[in-house]
Formats: sequence, structure tokens, C-alpha cells
Amino acid sequence: MPVNAPLTIALDAMGGDQAPKMVVRGANIAKERHPNVHFLLFGDQEKLERLVKRRRRLRKHVTICHAEQVVASDAKPAAALRGGRDTSMRRAIDAVAKGEAAGVVSAGNTGALMAMAKLVLKTLPGIDRPAITAFFPTLLGESVMLDLGANIDCDPNNLVEFALMGQLFSRTVLGLVEPTVGLLNVGSEDMKGHQELKDAHALLRSDAIPVNYHGFIEGDDIAAGTVDVIVTDGFTGNVALKSAEGTARLVTQFLRETFKSSIASRIGYLFARRAFTKFRVRIDPRRYNGAMFLGLNGIVVKSHGGTDAIGFANAIGVAVDLVAGGFNDRIKDEFDRIEAPETEPAAAQAAV
Amino acid sequence: MPVNAPLTIALDAMGGDQAPKMVVRGANIAKERHPNVHFLLFGDQEKLERLVKRRRRLRKHVTICHAEQVVASDAKPAAALRGGRDTSMRRAIDAVAKGEAAGVVSAGNTGALMAMAKLVLKTLPGIDRPAITAFFPTLLGESVMLDLGANIDCDPNNLVEFALMGQLFSRTVLGLVEPTVGLLNVGSEDMKGHQELKDAHALLRSDAIPVNYHGFIEGDDIAAGTVDVIVTDGFTGNVALKSAEGTARLVTQFLRETFKSSIASRIGYLFARRAFTKFRVRIDPRRYNGAMFLGLNGIVVKSHGGTDAIGFANAIGVAVDLVAGGFNDRIKDEFDRIEAPETEPAAAQAAV
Repeated sequence: MPVNAPLTIALDAMGGDQAPKMVVRGANIAKERHPNVHFLLFGDQEKLERLVKRRRRLRKHVTICHAEQVVASDAKPAAALRGGRDTSMRRAIDAVAKGEAAGVVSAGNTGALMAMAKLVLKTLPGIDRPAITAFFPTLLGESVMLDLGANIDCDPNNLVEFALMGQLFSRTVLGLVEPTVGLLNVGSEDMKGHQELKDAHALLRSDAIPVNYHGFIEGDDIAAGTVDVIVTDGFTGNVALKSAEGTARLVTQFLRETFKSSIASRIGYLFARRAFTKFRVRIDPRRYNGAMFLGLNGIVVKSHGGTDAIGFANAIGVAVDLVAGGFNDRIKDEFDRIEAPETEPAAAQAAV
Repeated sequence: MPVNAPLTIALDAMGGDQAPKMVVRGANIAKERHPNVHFLLFGDQEKLERLVKRRRRLRKHVTICHAEQVVASDAKPAAALRGGRDTSMRRAIDAVAKGEAAGVVSAGNTGALMAMAKLVLKTLPGIDRPAITAFFPTLLGESVMLDLGANIDCDPNNLVEFALMGQLFSRTVLGLVEPTVGLLNVGSEDMKGHQELKDAHALLRSDAIPVNYHGFIEGDDIAAGTVDVIVTDGFTGNVALKSAEGTARLVTQFLRETFKSSIASRIGYLFARRAFTKFRVRIDPRRYNGAMFLGLNGIVVKSHGGTDAIGFANAIGVAVDLVAGGFNDRIKDEFDRIEAPETEPAAAQAAV
């Protein structure tokens, strides 16, 4: 999405396996794609100055903000909250709270990022819990799935909130006009699954919730692209996502072994090489990097910790799209409308 | 596994999308692989006689048992139980209960098969709930996962029972000597996941349970082959399995499009074709067909409803392996040993 107005993004420059180098290189790539972006880089001033100095195009559009500490990748969220006031992660989130940046991107510790972001930014009015959201390649294009791990247990209202947020996310970032929403289950019949799922299913089918609801879907519907938005609790979503990632790695490894298995297959690879470059791009996990923490009073994007500069630039791109699309204002509007409907179907029904 | 003694398997000849033709053809393929097997074919006598007559090798080793009815693929388990006494599925299970067959294979309605098998065969002593179990290809070979959908909610004891049964299954069918067991979760730390998982984790780590326990694993560990046996509740297992299946289909579809995308890639395919045949065999879902209902007083194997004769023959092969390996006797022995341990660590601990 092209951005015309200047737009500031805070980066946790110390989060991720290859930080801070990967973060600065990622910012450099993102700068090329989104010329109007300005970065606040939080982390070790000396290291960051050295890394930024070399990049002439980038350095004019970067403000380095020194942060003394770093959240360890294995730190427990509670510990990170208590002791983390001067960490690069916390300072980057603070910048969003103060209005100095429109969004924040971090490749650091997921649990700590969620805990800090919830504490500092708070959830949007009408939203009980934020959800980790990402997109996936499907047979038909791309779809959005949430929650991917923020909430191990979810009640029916949480799932309904995820459905509404996911629908808006898919409109804003994927540009879909009338995205369909499905609830992940072990069968499509009404009687299937946990009680919370059945209750959420009933709510989503009612007219009170403005969602284009498809119904229950199953695990194989994710990659099939049966719906545009897949709603699930954080436990199930996390397992489904990682199970899919593991399988994609397995199949591509089998493929690699296939090409190496004989002289003929090696020759075959040479002929098909150009086509295979496109195949690799299509299933490249970096392409889908950038999980959004939806439902917070601010744009927070989590990059995979093991990503490289290209993946991190994609995560920055997600943040830019959400800011430029006015995502959080649209969520607020949507939830306002539901909270105060012109006609009140629930009350009317109760009176009958 | 070669079978020397004659061995009778009951087949629900009417279950599955392409039944009964697919079942008879599958039995024919299985007969070639397991020469000592005799089949009881339950279903429409006239149709079955016509199908069997043509296969000279098979017909001497088949007894056709007429069953008037068929369980509909969309029948609810409770309805199938009530009205299904003369269905091919029920009669095939009855044959195992009466000792006329050593095991049963059906490609029919999963819920009905589980409900009927539980009612007729009952669970083994010491086992609360049966679990649907299957194997998966991994980077390191094959692993076993359970439960894949029989039990939506599981308590810690159910999960421990699954661990013990899965370990024995992997020894019997995959021939592993000291299979490792992992509990599917959203992280590897002790504090992660639902309470039931944490409790099962503590039980599996104690010396009282003779399981080679690895600890918590995540969704991407399934295909990585981190453990030999993956234990999970039926909801999570079903979603993980189907998410993996969907992803494998997506990647192979992308691959197909890649080969078709240019003249060079089409030529490349011609060179690599023989190697690709092996690749296809390796990820062929028919190869992994045959989910076992573990924990019942009898061998019950569920074939995928949409499979063909080759897939059905593989499901028969799973039943033959389990019967020949004395699987249920081994489960009984194992659970007897746990129920009456020589030293009683729990009691000893309580006395301290």
C-alpha cells in the first residue's frame, strides 16, 4: 500500500536471533518499499550508529534511541514486565503509547512483547483480549488466522471478537471486500467440538454480529482456502500453524532429496530451476512473516525471531499497511456500531 | 510382518465412498501381501458374490456374510447404534466379539464405528477410553500420533494411557525398541498449556509410568520426527493432522503448477520423472492409511472413507500386523504391570 504522509515506526533493534544487524538491514529494505517511513531504532546506540552510518539512504530517516537493556529470548513475560523498563522492546512500545510512533515491530520474545504491549497500550474499547494474527498461503490466495498463541483458553465472546477483528484485518491488509469467516473445529456439524465453539458458532450465526460467517471448518480447510479468516483459540491455532510449517518443511526436504537422487533428476532440476525459484518464493516463510497483535491500542507487529532482513522488512510492511489503512480506527468504529446498534435485536427478542 | 498361522479379518464391505468394489479389490491386494489371511466380507451378498467371483485367488479365502443394511456416511453415532444391528459395520464388529475374526477393517462412518466398537467390544481392562491412532511420515522416518479425534476432551489419565498404548503400538507396528513419547503443546517449558497437559506432563515424568518420555513438543516437531509417539487430545490431534494434510496438498499443488509453468520446467520434469514417482509414493496418503482404534478388546482399523483399493489394502495390513504382533495381549500385560507394581512409589512418597 503506498503511503503519502510521513509515518513513523518504532523498531526493537535488539530483538531476534540476528539482531541488531538484521533489523537495520531490514529497515533499509523496507525504506526502499515505503519511502515515506521514518524509523525510531531502540537499542545499543553505539552498535546502531555503526550499522546505520554505512547506509546513506537509511541514515537520514532514522532516529537512534539508546536503550540499556535487552529482553532475553527465554525471559518469562512476568519477569520481563517487572525488570524491563529500559529494554529496547519496552521503549519501542512506549514510543507508540506516547504518540511518537504509529506502530512498533519486534522480533524479540513473543510472550514478553504481548505482556508489555497489553500493559502499556491496553486493549481497544470493546475488546477483551488481543489476538496474534498472521496470513497463510492457500490454494486460492491468502487467508488470515487468529489467535495463534496469545490466549490458550478462549470463551465464546473472545472468539466472536477475533472474528470481527480478523474480518477487518483481511479487508485492510489483503484488500478483500467481503471476507468469509470460519471457526476451526473437528467437523462441520453443529454438534461437533467443545462447548465454547458451539456457543461461538451460535453467536456468529445470529444477525447481531456483522460477520460473513461460513460456519465450522476443519484443519484441511486452512490451506484449501475455504474461508478468508480462520478463527480459533490460541492453543489450537498455534498447533495448527506449526504443524503446517513442519509439513511444508518436510515436503520441501523430500523434494530436495528427490532432485539429488539421480543424475537424470539433477539434469531435470537444471531445466526447471527458474520455475523452482518462483516455487520457493511462493512457499517462503519470510513472505508470511509479521504476526499482528490485533486488538491493542496501537499497531504491534511481531516478526519471527529467526528471520533475516527480508523477513523483517516484510514484518515492517505489515505494520505500515495497518497504519496507512487506519486499521485501529476502523476496529473502534466497528465495535462502536455493534455495542450501540440502531435496532436492538437481543432486547427485542427478550421482550417477545 | 509375515504371518504363518491362518488369520481371519472381518471387512465392512459396504463402508467407504467406492465400496464395495474398492473393498474387494483391496482384499485382493492384501491377500497377495499376506497369504495366510482369510476374510469375512460383510455386506450385500449378491453384489459381493459378483465381485468376488471374478477373482480366482481371492474367492477361496473369502466367506461372504450377508448384511441387509449399511450405516450412512452422515449417520449420527447414536442413531447408528440404535438402528444398526443388521448393518455390515455392526456385523463385522460382532464377528470379532464372537471370536470369528481376529480384527475388523472398515472405511465407513468414523463416529459410528467407534460407538459400535466401544459398545460391542468394550475397552481393555485398565483403559478408560480408546484413541484413534495413525502414523505419519517425518524427516527421520515415521511416527505415531494419538488421539486423532475419538476424545474431544481428555483428562491427564487419558493422556497417560494414550502414551502407554502409543509406545506399544510403535514397538509392535514400527518395530522400534525404545520409542520416545512427547506431549503436544504450544511450548516446551513446564508452565505452558492447559492444566490437563501440565498434570499429564508431571505424571509422565514420574517413575511410576514406564514411558520413555521426552517432554512437551510443538506442532513443528510432528513432521521433524522429534519423538516417535505424539500424544494429544482428540481435538488438537485432529486439527494438527488435517492441517498437515492440507499443507501437503498445497505444496504438491504448487509443485504441479511449477512444473507446468514453462517449456523448460516441463522438460525438467521429464528428466526427473522417475525420481518424482518415488517422491509421490513417499508422501502418498494411501501409504499412511489405516487408523487404529487403540484400547478396545479387539483389533479395529478405520480406513479413510475416500481411499482406493491400494489404501484399503494398507489398512488391512495394519490390522494384520496388530493381530500377528499380539498387540492387545501386550497392552493387557503392560497395564497389569502398572496396576500392580512391585514397589509402590506413590504410597511410599505419601508416607514420608
